[in-house]
Amino acid sequence: MDEEELKAEQRVLLDVLTAYYHYEDFARRDIVLSKRAKYESLTFEEQQLLPWFHDYLANLEMCVRMNGEFMRQVAVTVAPSWGIVSSPDTWGSAQYQDYDKVRYVMKQIVREWSSEGCEERCTGLERIMGVLGREFPDFEQRSKARVLVPGAGLGRLNHELVKMGFWCQGNEFSYHMLLASNYILNCTRMANEHSIFPFIHSTSNQYSRSLQTRPIFFPDAHPLTELQMIQKDHPTTDFADLMSIASGSFTDLYGPEDLSESQTYSKEKFAMEFRQENANSFDCVVTHFFIDTSSNVIEYLKTLNHCLKPGALWINYGPLLWHYEDDGAVYEIKHPDQTVHNAPVRGLELSAEDLLSLSSNWFELIHRESGIESGYSSDVRAMGGYKYRCEFWVLKKKLQS
Amino acid sequence: MDEEELKAEQRVLLDVLTAYYHYEDFARRDIVLSKRAKYESLTFEEQQLLPWFHDYLANLEMCVRMNGEFMRQVAVTVAPSWGIVSSPDTWGSAQYQDYDKVRYVMKQIVREWSSEGCEERCTGLERIMGVLGREFPDFEQRSKARVLVPGAGLGRLNHELVKMGFWCQGNEFSYHMLLASNYILNCTRMANEHSIFPFIHSTSNQYSRSLQTRPIFFPDAHPLTELQMIQKDHPTTDFADLMSIASGSFTDLYGPEDLSESQTYSKEKFAMEFRQENANSFDCVVTHFFIDTSSNVIEYLKTLNHCLKPGALWINYGPLLWHYEDDGAVYEIKHPDQTVHNAPVRGLELSAEDLLSLSSNWFELIHRESGIESGYSSDVRAMGGYKYRCEFWVLKKKLQS
Repeated sequence: MDEEELKAEQRVLLDVLTAYYHYEDFARRDIVLSKRAKYESLTFEEQQLLPWFHDYLANLEMCVRMNGEFMRQVAVTVAPSWGIVSSPDTWGSAQYQDYDKVRYVMKQIVREWSSEGCEERCTGLERIMGVLGREFPDFEQRSKARVLVPGAGLGRLNHELVKMGFWCQGNEFSYHMLLASNYILNCTRMANEHSIFPFIHSTSNQYSRSLQTRPIFFPDAHPLTELQMIQKDHPTTDFADLMSIASGSFTDLYGPEDLSESQTYSKEKFAMEFRQENANSFDCVVTHFFIDTSSNVIEYLKTLNHCLKPGALWINYGPLLWHYEDDGAVYEIKHPDQTVHNAPVRGLELSAEDLLSLSSNWFELIHRESGIESGYSSDVRAMGGYKYRCEFWVLKKKLQS
Repeated sequence: MDEEELKAEQRVLLDVLTAYYHYEDFARRDIVLSKRAKYESLTFEEQQLLPWFHDYLANLEMCVRMNGEFMRQVAVTVAPSWGIVSSPDTWGSAQYQDYDKVRYVMKQIVREWSSEGCEERCTGLERIMGVLGREFPDFEQRSKARVLVPGAGLGRLNHELVKMGFWCQGNEFSYHMLLASNYILNCTRMANEHSIFPFIHSTSNQYSRSLQTRPIFFPDAHPLTELQMIQKDHPTTDFADLMSIASGSFTDLYGPEDLSESQTYSKEKFAMEFRQENANSFDCVVTHFFIDTSSNVIEYLKTLNHCLKPGALWINYGPLLWHYEDDGAVYEIKHPDQTVHNAPVRGLELSAEDLLSLSSNWFELIHRESGIESGYSSDVRAMGGYKYRCEFWVLKKKLQS
């Protein structure tokens, strides 16, 4: 990365840290102040019909304060890991979407690190862990198997695979996720140490006020304690060495040399070297609610092919909710032949059949299960939520393609 | 309405008609052109990996043209019913959201008037019709029972209640819905006369291209034929007289005299007279996926109380996905005491318990069923969709409140 790119990268990090640090003000405006203003605009007689409203606002205010306290703690605790030692007040200027994503981090905490998230989380995780367990039956040999999890989020799947004895690298692009996963994996001290109130940001489809303001305790399992326990049974395995997180885009860090240059794929020296090291080096890549984050899924498939060993596994679980389907933006890409093109972000949203057929250029389909009902970051006690009918695929990289 | 308000109202109508008339161009840009541009920005080698792409674009183009033909037909057929005789080219200038809602009309057609929509639609409709059938067991007496359906959409529930012999008024605020319901109820000639391709607008969560471009035939039941058939068995009932649609806001047309004046509640002479006529005049109001369209649900409850006869029924089915929860707008309201206030649109999103407790000021709860799983305008053959856990309530207006 040249100096300018480094600065831009740090700017993004500082904005995200700022959004964590000042989340409380955002949340107060978003939830408490708008509700109070609405209440005050009602007629006196209408107000009398809602005798509970003031207590409700006080409750929400308390939840906002406790969420804010936790988010500040994350920011100041993990900032030094990224070399940030300046005072929070000088960090940056977060935009609405930076704050909005902090809300999303809380929902992700529920999904990955709470007992309420267990049912939703386990539908996919159990299938993935089942395949890996059967393919690598000998625990002591697993530390030699290299597993990659792009879109690692808050690291729960990573942690579970490390507990199984695998060498597992998480890969994540979003600083929002990286900050929180760093905190949860490395800085929590015991199970259920923290509580947050993730549901205060939605008042729709609530059965009751008390459900909206209920706390979620996390982490439901304390990562370090769990690893210490397992260490006793497997004294020769160095668990501390098994877990790593690589920050950056999947194609940039693990792709082949001939992709088109773009915002997420560079010819920068560090990236080129890292990609080279990763060629034919993984025994399994798990894409878990990830494959649809691509704006050009062909590049994801080429990246999977590039970093997997011949005959190694690609395990996929998730829907095809293409993240950029509604994104009207255009970005510049440079083809390997050096021609420059304006590429619309959206437009290459494939169907499941088309994606599998495209995959057959590099992979052999071993197992497919369709229509597995799964939520994602949903409030299981609300009056509804998005339900995916997920696809579960196990594919093997062809020996020769 | 004074002349200025009339003009503004007609402007809105003309914009919606324009969106119907020029939907094809919008859809082509939205779907075909963006996909073609994306394809053309790929490297030649990437393009070779998608040998089916040109045929796919041609298929989408055909679907867009057929959808466009139908939408133009709706616009030019029903425009005269609203006194619009000018040429489509002079109608108006639709905005993105006007076009976007035409997409939504197609999904609503699937829900209300296709056999694919039957399962989703019937979960609520059967419960509602069940209660009304039991409360009014004598078919020949039902034409004296006045039923109101606010948020009537494309009129299917209305039509089903008229088939049961009830006098039923639909009430709808959206011209998008009014145009299409007018066309389907009055201008179709037989069952399954038309086909549209509602799913081309979403490429996410598709199992296959062919499902994305599948047609939906409608209306699955031809309204006029059905009524003619029933007429034979009930020669004394004048079915043509049983159905009506009132255009406007629920509170403006059916509310009490003392609500706050706003964009959706006026002191205009016609509205005041219509409200007066409707006082204590309905035997049942059915709110079906409607109650959460309010920005101040107290006004909806007062309106229900105002237009129902003492002891009459309020039947509610749906979730609480408050439509204005994320709307940051502020509007001016004038309280009955003539003071003027700036009211945030959002902020009064109640939980189910709070809404029921508020309702008890005017209503007695007779029956409640919770957690009824229902989709709404979802593509049942896609890899997922929103699933509500609906509430079904039957309440009776108190004899004295």
